[in-house]
Order: sequence, then C-alpha cells, then structure tokens
Amino acid sequence: MARNHRGAVHLADKFASFADHWAPRRIANVNDYTIKIVKLKGQFVWHRHLDTDELFLVHRGCMTVRYRDRDVVLRANDVHVVPRGVEHLTLADEECEALVIEPACTVNTGDTDGEMTAEQEPFI
Amino acid sequence: MARNHRGAVHLADKFASFADHWAPRRIANVNDYTIKIVKLKGQFVWHRHLDTDELFLVHRGCMTVRYRDRDVVLRANDVHVVPRGVEHLTLADEECEALVIEPACTVNTGDTDGEMTAEQEPFI
Repeated sequence: MARNHRGAVHLADKFASFADHWAPRRIANVNDYTIKIVKLKGQFVWHRHLDTDELFLVHRGCMTVRYRDRDVVLRANDVHVVPRGVEHLTLADEECEALVIEPACTVNTGDTDGEMTAEQEPFI
Repeated sequence: MARNHRGAVHLADKFASFADHWAPRRIANVNDYTIKIVKLKGQFVWHRHLDTDELFLVHRGCMTVRYRDRDVVLRANDVHVVPRGVEHLTLADEECEALVIEPACTVNTGDTDGEMTAEQEPFI
C-alpha cells in the first residue's frame, strides 16, 4: 500500500489531475481502508459488495445511487453509505466528482466483473 | 453501532445541528469505521493513537495539525492523515468544521486521558 502524503492533500488539485470517468484514484489510506476519488458520468453497472459497506461523499456536482426499489440523490457535501450486499449502481447525467471510502481491497464492480472493472487504482 | 441513514446525509445540516467545540458526532459508519464531524476552535491536547491512523478532511475554515517537528495547515477540501503512533494536536484560531475518519472504537484523545476526552460520541 502506498504511503500517505506528508502534507495537505488538496482535493481540487487531485480532481484536476485526471479526466477519465469511472477510473478511481487513491489519495489517502487510513490503515487498511482507502480514500478514492472518482469522476462519474453516465451509468455504472449493477453490482453488490458482498463483504463491505461503501461510502460516497460528493465533492462537486450531483449523482444518484440507484437501488432496485429507490433512488438516493446526492449533491455536493452529501454523504451516503451503500450497505454491504445490496445491489446498486451509480449514475450521473453531468460529470460528478466524489470520494469513495472502503477497504483497500474492494473491487469497484463488486461481484460483477466486466469492462468497467478497474484493474488498478493508482495512488496520486 | 447505530445504523446508517437510508438517504442522503447533508453535511451542512449536520454541522448546523450542534455548536460545541471538540465534541465529535458520528454521521455514518463504513463497516467498523466511523465518519465523525467535529467543530474545532482553540487548541487540543497532545496525544497519539497507538493503533490507528486518523484522517481529517476540512469542510469549512482552516485548521492545523501540529507535530513536534512541523505544522500541516488544512483548508476547506484538504485531506491529511495522521500516522498511527505519532504525537500530534489539532488547533484552529477561528472555528473550523472537519470530518474525521477512523475505526469506531477510537478515543479522541488517544493515549492522553483528560477533560477533553469525549466520553460518548452520539450518532446524529
């Protein structure tokens, strides 16, 4: 696991350093948990994380966490935790920037392998 | 451990719901980790967390993480991780609002028991 930065990590700078969607970057670790940042645009795939909750914190824009029975809409400075084992997807009509907090070993597509699975999430 | 909220948690509303300094509230859990929010003003006590890293994310204002050999200044949307075992304190000249991410069992004053130890951190 990459070491943490010694100083302040500026989220705006980190988000400005990449442009691709659905490609999380790691910006900090807390023990064996990782803080990732991701840009969302469009719709992700249905999946679930069998072993972990997953926290979203919106930095800029608006996103939806869609469950089979309801939507949770998140705007800047909104937090939501997807419970472990519950099928969901994320979507955003316009580009949205979000933080994701989960165990470092978590795969972005959970139990659904596919072309949106992030093979490697670099520490930036 | 309290259940998570089913919908969006609005950080601004949560911060507006209390006024006391150095009194963290829990707003969400990710497995056995907790997201706390806290208002800082003045200077905390020197302490270390022997078993865990501790992440700060500033929501509003400005705070300093002071180590024995250096200061790390954090402004809104800045992140910093205090490494486990390293003595530190936090301080803020003007009121600062921050998120703290750490294992749910973490005591705010680490190995330094005293009047600033938060006996109970309610889930709001």
